[in-house]
Amino acid sequence: MLDEEHRLILKSVREFTELHVRPRAREIDRGVYPREILRKLGELGLLAPTIPPEFNGGGSDTLTQVLVVEELARASPGVATIMEIQSSMIAENIYAMGNPRQREELLPKFASGELICAFALSEPCCGSDAGAIETRAVRVGGEWRISGVKMWITSGLYADYYLVFARTGPKEARHKAITAFLVKRGSCVEATPIEVMGVRGTGTAEVKFNECPANDDDIVGKINEGWAVVVHALNVGRAAISGVAVGIARGAFEEALSWARGRRLFGKTLIEFQNTQFELAEMYAAIETARTLTYYAAYLYDVKSPDFVAMAHVAKLQTARIAVDVARRAVQLEGGYGYSKESKAEMFYRDAKILEIGEGTNEVMKYVLFKLLEKR
Amino acid sequence: MLDEEHRLILKSVREFTELHVRPRAREIDRGVYPREILRKLGELGLLAPTIPPEFNGGGSDTLTQVLVVEELARASPGVATIMEIQSSMIAENIYAMGNPRQREELLPKFASGELICAFALSEPCCGSDAGAIETRAVRVGGEWRISGVKMWITSGLYADYYLVFARTGPKEARHKAITAFLVKRGSCVEATPIEVMGVRGTGTAEVKFNECPANDDDIVGKINEGWAVVVHALNVGRAAISGVAVGIARGAFEEALSWARGRRLFGKTLIEFQNTQFELAEMYAAIETARTLTYYAAYLYDVKSPDFVAMAHVAKLQTARIAVDVARRAVQLEGGYGYSKESKAEMFYRDAKILEIGEGTNEVMKYVLFKLLEKR
Amino acid sequence: MLDEEHRLILKSVREFTELHVRPRAREIDRGVYPREILRKLGELGLLAPTIPPEFNGGGSDTLTQVLVVEELARASPGVATIMEIQSSMIAENIYAMGNPRQREELLPKFASGELICAFALSEPCCGSDAGAIETRAVRVGGEWRISGVKMWITSGLYADYYLVFARTGPKEARHKAITAFLVKRGSCVEATPIEVMGVRGTGTAEVKFNECPANDDDIVGKINEGWAVVVHALNVGRAAISGVAVGIARGAFEEALSWARGRRLFGKTLIEFQNTQFELAEMYAAIETARTLTYYAAYLYDVKSPDFVAMAHVAKLQTARIAVDVARRAVQLEGGYGYSKESKAEMFYRDAKILEIGEGTNEVMKYVLFKLLEKR
Amino acid sequence: MLDEEHRLILKSVREFTELHVRPRAREIDRGVYPREILRKLGELGLLAPTIPPEFNGGGSDTLTQVLVVEELARASPGVATIMEIQSSMIAENIYAMGNPRQREELLPKFASGELICAFALSEPCCGSDAGAIETRAVRVGGEWRISGVKMWITSGLYADYYLVFARTGPKEARHKAITAFLVKRGSCVEATPIEVMGVRGTGTAEVKFNECPANDDDIVGKINEGWAVVVHALNVGRAAISGVAVGIARGAFEEALSWARGRRLFGKTLIEFQNTQFELAEMYAAIETARTLTYYAAYLYDVKSPDFVAMAHVAKLQTARIAVDVARRAVQLEGGYGYSKESKAEMFYRDAKILEIGEGTNEVMKYVLFKLLEKR
Repeated sequence: MLDEEHRLILKSVREFTELHVRPRAREIDRGVYPREILRKLGELGLLAPTIPPEFNGGGSDTLTQVLVVEELARASPGVATIMEIQSSMIAENIYAMGNPRQREELLPKFASGELICAFALSEPCCGSDAGAIETRAVRVGGEWRISGVKMWITSGLYADYYLVFARTGPKEARHKAITAFLVKRGSCVEATPIEVMGVRGTGTAEVKFNECPANDDDIVGKINEGWAVVVHALNVGRAAISGVAVGIARGAFEEALSWARGRRLFGKTLIEFQNTQFELAEMYAAIETARTLTYYAAYLYDVKSPDFVAMAHVAKLQTARIAVDVARRAVQLEGGYGYSKESKAEMFYRDAKILEIGEGTNEVMKYVLFKLLEKR
Repeated sequence: MLDEEHRLILKSVREFTELHVRPRAREIDRGVYPREILRKLGELGLLAPTIPPEFNGGGSDTLTQVLVVEELARASPGVATIMEIQSSMIAENIYAMGNPRQREELLPKFASGELICAFALSEPCCGSDAGAIETRAVRVGGEWRISGVKMWITSGLYADYYLVFARTGPKEARHKAITAFLVKRGSCVEATPIEVMGVRGTGTAEVKFNECPANDDDIVGKINEGWAVVVHALNVGRAAISGVAVGIARGAFEEALSWARGRRLFGKTLIEFQNTQFELAEMYAAIETARTLTYYAAYLYDVKSPDFVAMAHVAKLQTARIAVDVARRAVQLEGGYGYSKESKAEMFYRDAKILEIGEGTNEVMKYVLFKLLEKR
Repeated sequence: MLDEEHRLILKSVREFTELHVRPRAREIDRGVYPREILRKLGELGLLAPTIPPEFNGGGSDTLTQVLVVEELARASPGVATIMEIQSSMIAENIYAMGNPRQREELLPKFASGELICAFALSEPCCGSDAGAIETRAVRVGGEWRISGVKMWITSGLYADYYLVFARTGPKEARHKAITAFLVKRGSCVEATPIEVMGVRGTGTAEVKFNECPANDDDIVGKINEGWAVVVHALNVGRAAISGVAVGIARGAFEEALSWARGRRLFGKTLIEFQNTQFELAEMYAAIETARTLTYYAAYLYDVKSPDFVAMAHVAKLQTARIAVDVARRAVQLEGGYGYSKESKAEMFYRDAKILEIGEGTNEVMKYVLFKLLEKR
Repeated sequence: MLDEEHRLILKSVREFTELHVRPRAREIDRGVYPREILRKLGELGLLAPTIPPEFNGGGSDTLTQVLVVEELARASPGVATIMEIQSSMIAENIYAMGNPRQREELLPKFASGELICAFALSEPCCGSDAGAIETRAVRVGGEWRISGVKMWITSGLYADYYLVFARTGPKEARHKAITAFLVKRGSCVEATPIEVMGVRGTGTAEVKFNECPANDDDIVGKINEGWAVVVHALNVGRAAISGVAVGIARGAFEEALSWARGRRLFGKTLIEFQNTQFELAEMYAAIETARTLTYYAAYLYDVKSPDFVAMAHVAKLQTARIAVDVARRAVQLEGGYGYSKESKAEMFYRDAKILEIGEGTNEVMKYVLFKLLEKR
């Protein structure tokens, strides 16, 4: 599905990754937030590939975005995850639903990486059940005051802005009484790091909002219609995060392949064993499957196909599992080396698991797919 | 990936299937070879969809062929299998590699279903190891005499012609000394039925050739280059048989879905149970995955992409497993009903397994994928 | 866990099987009910191994019963299934819960195979939800009149007696208003064969009871306490049917092993390929797992351990899956041969699937295991 | 299979674990070697449960050892791993094959935890192919000088002694020219930490031996017969490490169960969802399977059954996978919490993977099982 332009961008993101991302992947895994990589991605239009150039984006399509995400994830799933959220869940949303001020003033800075904005939806109470969030925005004078606690917020520690989803109506109204606010970081914001197993270095945090002020002008979309922002973000995000899955699977596979070519045992090279060859073939088949689903979902989005939503959920579900499975096989093939931090297989193994949880668990994917099925 | 023309053909093959195939699926499963269905498919250009109309084909592309195969398999995997071989392994080969006489005289009759031709490659000695076949063609006077035993030959019992692969050089030369002959059925041909678990009604046979005569004019391709015919047939075949897999999976799924909607237990409809919903979602995701891989492989063939061969093998491997898995889930969901012959789930369950064996086992797929991987 | 006595019986059942069962397995698969094999098993005390010799049983323990079932299933899962039900679901129940007349008069004939008794619980309305059965027993004069339709009744076509579960109270009382009756076959009974995918030759039928007469004396257990009979039968049955699973897995494995030893391809014996060796090792490990679980469950029953019920359900769930999986691997290893009826692999493949459905589906096993878990 | 004595020890090790191990599990996971826990285990006879009390062991059987390992692993797989090696691979070997001095002088200190001894077999060149190790022992004067590099050595950083396997003959003689030496730590030993994904805090190291001196008296077993020591250690070890697997699976499961009971979403408790219930049932069934295999293997060892070796390999293969699978399901069930270091699920997830690699990979298990199969 790739055309000449896709291949050009692919080449440039590959060079970028080899130069700037791969050498720092382990440092990021140890917890260093790659702020300056984001800045450099922004300069090249790779931080928000789908946003028009006049807003500092790449002016390209969703398939391009997926390619960028995939290449970054091959080297550093952490960088890919941050970028994926900044791009598909923040920049695209502001572009699609933001008001003129947000688009003129903030979007170009989000797209360039000058400012980082975190997507603040999940709460301690509620991961999969986002319609039950408890963070509240109340009107005080002409202003809003936002209070509540957000959990698992990628870039939460380092963000300059937060796209905060807050309740602006009764709890019973669930997702029909949620509004999206762009909140500037300030003294009302308290971010505490959450230690996670993988995709480390992403600044994942619990973020407390203590009466953070916001104006009507900071609302993205309409009052009580924040759910449209969530849905837009998650749908696009599902294609984009599938790119992270493809990248993780490829990163793990490529290391395992190279290990199998070099490792000797029982007087042979590991790759000469039929079991190794079949394992590599399985991984290869799985990756091509993941890739086809992901590119196809992105393509459906780009051509505005009504089949996009189903395919995005299929892709998210299947590619997450494929990434977990391929990373597991890679560690296994590399044996002790794969289990040690001298390899990157162990990193991909830890990183991959988030794909079955984040931006909608496997269970949520199945729930949505069933709902789509029911409607047919 | 479907355009307007694809959708039109899809509509027509669906109508055809409902009218002529579905009502007879069980009868075919009991062993009746659907000769007249093939004839009717031929009349509509659906027996050889990719062959130009002047040869009685449908004049369409490989993606169309896959769609036809899929729709037939939804109702009767047996019919789909016969058609798939007659189309992608016989008609396409004669069209691509046949000499003028074969193309003028035989191809139109193969495409119309007036004559059935079986693909006679496998032997008792050699399934996956086709390079070791022992059937021999020896020159006697100006003629060839072909002798040997072929196994698992679809349509073998009822074929009017056989595309026979025979050794025309030393055994050691393996696949470099194999020639393809079009052999007319006659008294030299002895076909014995092989009882099989599934895809019944396909006239699967052991076929003995006892000094069957052939002329140089009956050779497809060149002497000792029969392997090119095998490879051409199998590569196209891998995309086409993936369509059988998609169709089987859909057939099983659709029955299970309808059962789940009607069956009541513990005071609820079966489909109201979360486990049922998740099972259905899994099946749906698997089918969409199989379908995407299959259509994409066909599309790559149609655009003559160098990525076609790898994708055809990925599709064959993955869709075969998906068909087996979805049929298993369907039987399970239907319980005792699914295990009985009142359902079609049990038929799909038996039929699906051949997909992991026929036209290249899963193991052969992995072997080829590894070889492709090695070359990169 | 086997002692000397177990080994002796094992030897004798093996000899019996080789002589009387294996040669007829295909005939039974084609639909012939093995009445005289049951009779011969009865003569040797192998039809009801756990029943005391004075009632014509084998006077042994549940572990012995499992061994007999396993050996029979290795050759003919159909025979094993009939025997398993006659033994663990009929004879054991009459022995444990029958009244003196039932024990004196009928049990010895059930144990000897002179009379066959079918277990008639499932209905068209209700497989997994047995508490909802609709067959009714109503009092007319001093007698009961039983009417209703039973489904999936093993031996239903040929049974001389039926252990019929019928409602003797309101539907709402569910399993608290069900009574077990021993009904003699007569003109009030109408049995129609159900065509099934596997375990054929077991006389599986839909059985209609049209006002069948019964006395109080024909009640097994107490009025409205038929559920105790069901539970007793199913719990013991779960250990016993796990023996069928072990036998099926072994039968398929042994054939595949022998095929791998004889089959040649690419200049080697199939068994020389690492993939074949690993496949065989997987099957072997799976079988030993299934066997250990099954024997252990039987042992727990024999020592009256409170852990029996959980282990019986674990064994049923896991061994059913193992049988399905091993049979699938066996067919795959044997390729075209395994898919044809010249092999027995295809029979085991069809037969195995019933294990995930019959005598409690996988889903029911999980439901019960969860309930047990909740209570801890 | 547990008797009263087993239950008593179980109770005491459980209390010990709750008091001394569980509270420190995270600290150990961060890298702190639990030296004083080993000492305390030694005091209670729990560090070497199978060694007679006169040597400071517990005087119990292998089943007991497995129980201790399992309980420790439930709280801290790291502690369990160290203990398992010190017990089954060191103490048991010295007891079975050590000379009188080794038994009198060292064994009591190994069993009490006063001294830690590492098992030094694997090398950079050779994990699964241990017959190819390159560390050499050469005779210089009346002494041996041992030089070479060992890899993945558990307790390698902190050991007081090393059981070093060194080549004492030509490389071609492979495992027939390997001798086991007890080497005291000294300046000739250089240990470098290896960073690993899981079972952290076990002091895993690369250990360099630079001309380390040893006497004939330091040889365990006979010259050139070190392989017998390896095989003895690994066979017993396979039962023992299966206990680690059971413990990890239980630890993960118990946390997930408790999470499911407390977590609320969509107005219900997580455990009220059928999918949750079935997931928990799957985990429970898997754990009971793993446990049965492990206890049964230990029991076979204790009764000196010839079936022990096969069952030990079956148990190692299956329980390792079960631990990986159950940990994965636990993380999934707990969602974001399970992925964070606030849970222990993520630790079990990382720890479990070593079970498929260490003390013989899954592939080695399959290789050995196939060899056993061949011999039958």
